[in-house]
Amino acid sequence: MSTAKYLTGDSTAINEFLDKFDVFLFDCDGVLWSGDTVFEGVPETLNLLRTKGKKVVFVTNNSTKSRQDYVKKLAGLGISADTDDVFGSAYSSAIYISRILELPPNKRKVFVLGEAGIETELRSENVPFIGGTDPSLRRDMTPEDYQALADGSALDPEVGVVLVGLDFHINYLKLATAFQYIRRGAIFYATNIDSTLPNARSFFPGAGSIVAPLALMTGQQPTSFGKPSSAMMAAIKGKFELDRARTCMVGDRLNTDIQFGIDGGLGGTLAVLTGVNKKEDWEVEGAKVVPGYYVDRLSDLRSAT
Amino acid sequence: MSTAKYLTGDSTAINEFLDKFDVFLFDCDGVLWSGDTVFEGVPETLNLLRTKGKKVVFVTNNSTKSRQDYVKKLAGLGISADTDDVFGSAYSSAIYISRILELPPNKRKVFVLGEAGIETELRSENVPFIGGTDPSLRRDMTPEDYQALADGSALDPEVGVVLVGLDFHINYLKLATAFQYIRRGAIFYATNIDSTLPNARSFFPGAGSIVAPLALMTGQQPTSFGKPSSAMMAAIKGKFELDRARTCMVGDRLNTDIQFGIDGGLGGTLAVLTGVNKKEDWEVEGAKVVPGYYVDRLSDLRSAT
Repeated sequence: MSTAKYLTGDSTAINEFLDKFDVFLFDCDGVLWSGDTVFEGVPETLNLLRTKGKKVVFVTNNSTKSRQDYVKKLAGLGISADTDDVFGSAYSSAIYISRILELPPNKRKVFVLGEAGIETELRSENVPFIGGTDPSLRRDMTPEDYQALADGSALDPEVGVVLVGLDFHINYLKLATAFQYIRRGAIFYATNIDSTLPNARSFFPGAGSIVAPLALMTGQQPTSFGKPSSAMMAAIKGKFELDRARTCMVGDRLNTDIQFGIDGGLGGTLAVLTGVNKKEDWEVEGAKVVPGYYVDRLSDLRSAT
Repeated sequence: MSTAKYLTGDSTAINEFLDKFDVFLFDCDGVLWSGDTVFEGVPETLNLLRTKGKKVVFVTNNSTKSRQDYVKKLAGLGISADTDDVFGSAYSSAIYISRILELPPNKRKVFVLGEAGIETELRSENVPFIGGTDPSLRRDMTPEDYQALADGSALDPEVGVVLVGLDFHINYLKLATAFQYIRRGAIFYATNIDSTLPNARSFFPGAGSIVAPLALMTGQQPTSFGKPSSAMMAAIKGKFELDRARTCMVGDRLNTDIQFGIDGGLGGTLAVLTGVNKKEDWEVEGAKVVPGYYVDRLSDLRSAT
């Protein structure tokens, strides 16, 4: 069994660790901040890495925000970033659909279950879409809706993809509509499948909770473009031309962040203990996912010399 | 492998079949009607059974309607019935919660995700509840909701059960609220877990689609009180003092209706081909659920002498 090397308080080990990597991929929630509160010393730690010539990339599964929204959030917490430094599951999905997926010319529209972040990213890649935040879908079903969904007259024949992310305005009409598209052959994609979303020191329904009804009804599991999917890693690698061996994933969740780094063949993974998982979670007999390194908190890296 | 005996057109076999049973439990949708259209000859067939002294019971998984609602629907289709002839998953749930489940005195309230049918049945059993069709839950989440759900101030401390059925008004606030109750220890029940609901000759999200997000988030599968659960059979048996050997389940779905009859140890099961399953579904090598008898349509039983 592999073991995780503990770096907190060990300047020599931290120096050796930092020397191994040129690029650091950061999960955000639980690593940099919790909700709207940035962890102490995080902006300074990111500055230190940049001073040492490291590339810093923010990798998030939250598809309700676009890259621009994240740049604003980072700035508000004292962390400077460009849009190109941010990689979200909405963007990852949009890139895949526009650049890799080959759809027939008459099936290029995406039906979106989700929020504005997905719409912004699809728009930035010139992918046509319907649904999403369209206010005409935020209402109860009528008897006419049942008929028009069943006979297909309420459906857009050009929809070839259903893309599902976290939708704070989920309702029966949207679920029924997405289901009809998938059962008529639309490809079923998810921005990510996290069951919950942390907020206010608790947990709330995540994108996986919007995916779950459709997976049950259709008997299909969607391809997901969030961590730990290989599609997300392929999209990041395509964009940044990463040397995987010189790249390290930093995160708080074993089953998304650390798994993502390991499955993606990165040179290293660094776990922080400020989020979901604790060291007891990988220090058990038969632990499936073990990080390469860990620190109590990200700012412990500041003892580098 | 057992085989199903085909009764259509065989008066002798139908007479022998009818002589074996005193009670017939009928699934409704796909057996008696589709949507709002009754199948030809069904009222006459039910009258024939009653003339022969058979007890006829209607057993439905649809929890959006109460027993009274079903009596009205049956009457509208030309089938007379009393409330006591109807057994629905909402009623089955209410009976279990009121008569079998032993809750601490300060944990007796039920948080309902569902429609008026569940509320009517809980009320008939004097079970206190909140949620359901309460219009104050039919709205978007606010930042205050996140805080109040996370710190528990929005939660009723007397809620000891979350009961989930089909909710045509499902939304993020309701899912988040139900999740908070379950993660704080409330018992997780479902009226039924059908993934879809037939309507307008197509399929729409069923109760299982409302259950799925909560099952994913909590990591728990709820106890279900619909077919094919043993809880439904126990409740029916308790109410009617059935002789199981002299009771036959009639239905169109192998994995709910016929399974329900077999698991419940009934003397017989009769499949009809007017709904979901076809005879090819059980006439395959290794079929798991095989009915005892089948007819093309229920009204074929009228050739009894």
